[in-house]
Amino acid sequence: MFEEYLTERQVISIIRELSNEMAENYPGIKISIGDDAALFHFSGGDVLLTTDCIFEGIHFNLDTHSLSDVGWKAAACGVSDIAAMGGQPLCVLMSLAYSEPLSEEQIRSLLGGFIEMLETCNCALIGGDVSRSRSGLSLVVTVAGVPHIRGSVRRSGAKVGDLIGLTGHTGDSAAGLYILSKNDEKLRARFPELVESHLRPKPRVEAGWIIASAGASAMEDTSDGLARDLLHICEESKLGCILEERLLPVSQSLVSLAEHEGEDPFEWFMGGGEDFELVFTASEKAFGEISRCCGERGIPVTMIGRMVSANEGSFIVRKDGSRVNIENLGYEHFA
Amino acid sequence: MFEEYLTERQVISIIRELSNEMAENYPGIKISIGDDAALFHFSGGDVLLTTDCIFEGIHFNLDTHSLSDVGWKAAACGVSDIAAMGGQPLCVLMSLAYSEPLSEEQIRSLLGGFIEMLETCNCALIGGDVSRSRSGLSLVVTVAGVPHIRGSVRRSGAKVGDLIGLTGHTGDSAAGLYILSKNDEKLRARFPELVESHLRPKPRVEAGWIIASAGASAMEDTSDGLARDLLHICEESKLGCILEERLLPVSQSLVSLAEHEGEDPFEWFMGGGEDFELVFTASEKAFGEISRCCGERGIPVTMIGRMVSANEGSFIVRKDGSRVNIENLGYEHFA
Repeated sequence: MFEEYLTERQVISIIRELSNEMAENYPGIKISIGDDAALFHFSGGDVLLTTDCIFEGIHFNLDTHSLSDVGWKAAACGVSDIAAMGGQPLCVLMSLAYSEPLSEEQIRSLLGGFIEMLETCNCALIGGDVSRSRSGLSLVVTVAGVPHIRGSVRRSGAKVGDLIGLTGHTGDSAAGLYILSKNDEKLRARFPELVESHLRPKPRVEAGWIIASAGASAMEDTSDGLARDLLHICEESKLGCILEERLLPVSQSLVSLAEHEGEDPFEWFMGGGEDFELVFTASEKAFGEISRCCGERGIPVTMIGRMVSANEGSFIVRKDGSRVNIENLGYEHFA
Repeated sequence: MFEEYLTERQVISIIRELSNEMAENYPGIKISIGDDAALFHFSGGDVLLTTDCIFEGIHFNLDTHSLSDVGWKAAACGVSDIAAMGGQPLCVLMSLAYSEPLSEEQIRSLLGGFIEMLETCNCALIGGDVSRSRSGLSLVVTVAGVPHIRGSVRRSGAKVGDLIGLTGHTGDSAAGLYILSKNDEKLRARFPELVESHLRPKPRVEAGWIIASAGASAMEDTSDGLARDLLHICEESKLGCILEERLLPVSQSLVSLAEHEGEDPFEWFMGGGEDFELVFTASEKAFGEISRCCGERGIPVTMIGRMVSANEGSFIVRKDGSRVNIENLGYEHFA
């Protein structure tokens, strides 16, 4: 056991111990923590690479998230980006920075959640970096992955007439954050699945692979909120889209919470991010195949709209027949 | 031209423009900025992967570093880790976070320095992430690289009797920081090369490749300071080392500055980090080959000591014959 607060080298030694336990199951990992760079075997072809960061006070707060939740979330952000290309995550680097020293229990909790998330998708922590920060805790996660043999599903490939699909349902994570920020134990006990959606989001790696297999034309994860992420697809594909509110697969829990609180779930559903669901576009034929394959594996997929030409705009038809421009929904830093 | 301060999407669009200009020269890069992950072709075999972060107020200050310098430094940190394994850097992801909005001029300056550094080693920016931070500017750089065909040079391979070599000279970067922190224009004008060493460190990619080619037994870059980085090699190789101060290749500028300021350059040389030189161990035969090949390319290499068994300890023999334990030198966060 170490003293209460760890030096940087002690932190690294704990990360290394936990990472080595994982790496034993991954013969392709040749060098992990302890050198200037990690080394992994790649059988050739293309490599997917992505990086994502989460900062205390911006993406999480330690009064609502345990360190284990923060670790989980950081890993999920990175893994989800690989899923959104239709790829399989392979290995991960973590850059950890903190302004207050951490105890052994704290670092084990943080890493525990991080590794627990990675283990759900057979992905290993192979390296990283530890540093002091000026304010708060931050984690930057880099994930290398294997693309689908049919190619990676980009944002730019959508065609006019393609159906728009969504895995699972969005808004639950934002609703979970709403509950956490209310600091109301009763509300939290009544909607544990919404809180869980926010604290332990589950990237759709299997669904991403199925969607790529079927030849989807475009895909993105709903990390910034359905509206904004779908807009990225519209912009990259130089198209517009029409969604219909009545098609949106709102979860029963979200409906109940909205009723209980007298809120409209629409903003949560369209604007709330961090669900790590997948929004994609596909031809009718491909959509059918995706629906069947996902259904067989218990993954819900819903058709929520269609791609149209850019001059038709990007909007959602609300239940009352009114149209809302989806550019007015969703979240952007420094907007 | 954009308004004075940019939204996150405007920042990304500028990064994308600059990154696309680079990517045109790299046919192996199939997807760069604009999707959830980047995609690059890899001809098979092993991939080196490393991540490194720099934070305002910890690793740099904007009163001494221009944004262009910060960009350069961030790229140099990551590239140097690949050099220290004997590899060739291939492509880079950048995770940028800032608490105050940036203008177009500022983001172009930051990216300009970043890309300028990458171009010195034919390495391309292919992706990344932009976010708000709670306090100050931070950059996390991930570099993927190709390992040397002879294998990667780890920290753990040193043998008893191996010679210890150093490229260039260390301490100049720390001396440059000393000058910058004094805010004395005359001193700065007198020692521009020391300031340059701090603001524009040059990773030793070519030297790393040569050292790996010759079959060096261990290697690391001097990012944390010669003493601490050599200790890493000792720890990983379960050995000790004996250095001799009279062998240390102190630069003429560092000697002049030390005389001028009445300081002993020893602390700068042994403890000051961020020179991004390479410290390595090699058999006498390999050392000879490294010296010859590096010499032919104008890269100075100096023999500074020998590896010994762990029970002999790790120390430097000073000019007066006294011995200093190198564990007492150098820098650690939260030490």
